[in-house]
Amino acid sequence: MNKIVETVPNFSEGRDEEKIKRIVSSLNQHPTIHVLSCESDSDYNRTVLTLLGSPEEMQDALLDLVGVCEKEIDLNTHQGEHPRMGAVDVIPFIPVKNITMDECVGCAKKLGQAINECYHIPVFFYAEAATNPERVLLPNIRKGEFEGMKTKIKDPDWHPDCGTPDIHPTFGALAVGARPFLIAYNIDLDSRDEKIASAIAKAIRKSSGGFQYIQAGPAFLAQRGHVQVTMNILDYKKNPLYRIFETVRMEARRYLVLATSAEIVGLMPKEALVQSLDYYLQANKEAIKAKTLSHQELVELGRRYLLLREFEVTKLVEHYLEQPE
Amino acid sequence: MNKIVETVPNFSEGRDEEKIKRIVSSLNQHPTIHVLSCESDSDYNRTVLTLLGSPEEMQDALLDLVGVCEKEIDLNTHQGEHPRMGAVDVIPFIPVKNITMDECVGCAKKLGQAINECYHIPVFFYAEAATNPERVLLPNIRKGEFEGMKTKIKDPDWHPDCGTPDIHPTFGALAVGARPFLIAYNIDLDSRDEKIASAIAKAIRKSSGGFQYIQAGPAFLAQRGHVQVTMNILDYKKNPLYRIFETVRMEARRYLVLATSAEIVGLMPKEALVQSLDYYLQANKEAIKAKTLSHQELVELGRRYLLLREFEVTKLVEHYLEQPE
Repeated sequence: MNKIVETVPNFSEGRDEEKIKRIVSSLNQHPTIHVLSCESDSDYNRTVLTLLGSPEEMQDALLDLVGVCEKEIDLNTHQGEHPRMGAVDVIPFIPVKNITMDECVGCAKKLGQAINECYHIPVFFYAEAATNPERVLLPNIRKGEFEGMKTKIKDPDWHPDCGTPDIHPTFGALAVGARPFLIAYNIDLDSRDEKIASAIAKAIRKSSGGFQYIQAGPAFLAQRGHVQVTMNILDYKKNPLYRIFETVRMEARRYLVLATSAEIVGLMPKEALVQSLDYYLQANKEAIKAKTLSHQELVELGRRYLLLREFEVTKLVEHYLEQPE
Repeated sequence: MNKIVETVPNFSEGRDEEKIKRIVSSLNQHPTIHVLSCESDSDYNRTVLTLLGSPEEMQDALLDLVGVCEKEIDLNTHQGEHPRMGAVDVIPFIPVKNITMDECVGCAKKLGQAINECYHIPVFFYAEAATNPERVLLPNIRKGEFEGMKTKIKDPDWHPDCGTPDIHPTFGALAVGARPFLIAYNIDLDSRDEKIASAIAKAIRKSSGGFQYIQAGPAFLAQRGHVQVTMNILDYKKNPLYRIFETVRMEARRYLVLATSAEIVGLMPKEALVQSLDYYLQANKEAIKAKTLSHQELVELGRRYLLLREFEVTKLVEHYLEQPE
């Protein structure tokens, strides 16, 4: 069973295209690492990469990436709108396939140690890898940014998890951690009334009493001419898509409104689709298990049961790992 | 709009029937206070009263009740299995009708002050009335019980909210607070498989990612020969019955199991029924509002839409307030 991890390293260069190219090309030495996306923002002056690969190769690739950034980026002369404390600012490990959260925490810790040993960069562990509650949320760690970290890191409460309490003079400091895969999921309603989308969002989201791992709000899609319940699913194992979709449908019924379609923004792990399709296959007494189906078959069932629109195999993380010849 | 509050005072006598009668009869001076239940347990050696009435009359009645207990009960000679720190141990105010939680917190604070002034009993505010996070949960306050409170109350962290840091020599100390109405709600499944009830309970309860105000678990009803999802709804406004019922039905579908009926254990506020029936009336395009209906009509719709069994007007708190002539 080959293990697959996603990482989303953020580095502090979003303007100099040549420099960005040199940094990203360090990944070419690791041909099994897939670069799913590379998004630079010149206002933020940072670049966000989405990478997929085996946990071991990923650690090697990121160690190289951090090494190149250490040479290329000097935060003493860096300006941008997005808060940052390091030339590479943050690296989250996200379990995608055949790998547990604990293993991802292990990856984060091993990589953090290696980065500190190679480049003398102080590393903080955050999110699921945090060593105390104050370090769970990245903004807590990053507060003060590169400029403030010089003194903040001397405070015993903010000594790094790896390394001595000194920032790297040009790189700064880095946060490495692990977090669950987040699915951006929107459900379309055949209504133009944002109040209805808002009432439904309130019924299902954590902040007003709903499901624990759901963030939700209303949105009006002017071009399409209808409202949406727009959501993040922070843990699709505990709050599967089908449960959210059926609960939204049920709530919509009182407004005599239908959930006509839905969409996944970005990617989703195949497992999240399989898990939700199994609900419908079982409820409809179909004698098949979703996990036995091809990507194409899964996607077709996703359109049928979850009413996912513009839903292609390219929406599955695994598509980039198991390309047909 | 007459305001109605429920209170559930617990006093530390569950064996001496004559004494219990003398204590409870103090309520006779307050004819508008309804005693919904009076349950004594001789092992626990305590009695739990459920009272309904207006907030003002309730405060007067409870001040009298505490006064009688102060004369009748000496905790120096009291033994029983249930932890206790006072002759009256705890009094929660629960909003029932036309009254907010904030007003109930106000009642708790006023009553606490009055009790301290009249009888020199130290009072702690708990739950929604707590003055700091350590005092939200009653067991935190009560830890050490009557015997330990003599020294605990001297600790600045445990000075009472009303009174000097000394226990009353025979009464001890009292917790007064405010909390939401809790509905005990069970949904019957046409299955004998406890695993199914357990999986559904996990899907909906807070502790495994479900709705924020739901506690749930499986139960097998041997006499009736089927399983149940057995629940507490800690906030029926944020997690209304219909939403829980429909979500349980939806989850049951994958096991090809039906939710055949449901039950309310104890009482429920009429508002909780009205709120859930409005969902079904709207979804079925009925041009009526549940709040305009009689108790009898509401109960009939509760049986039809929520499949509530053994469901009579006597299940509504308001039945005891608005008895027909």
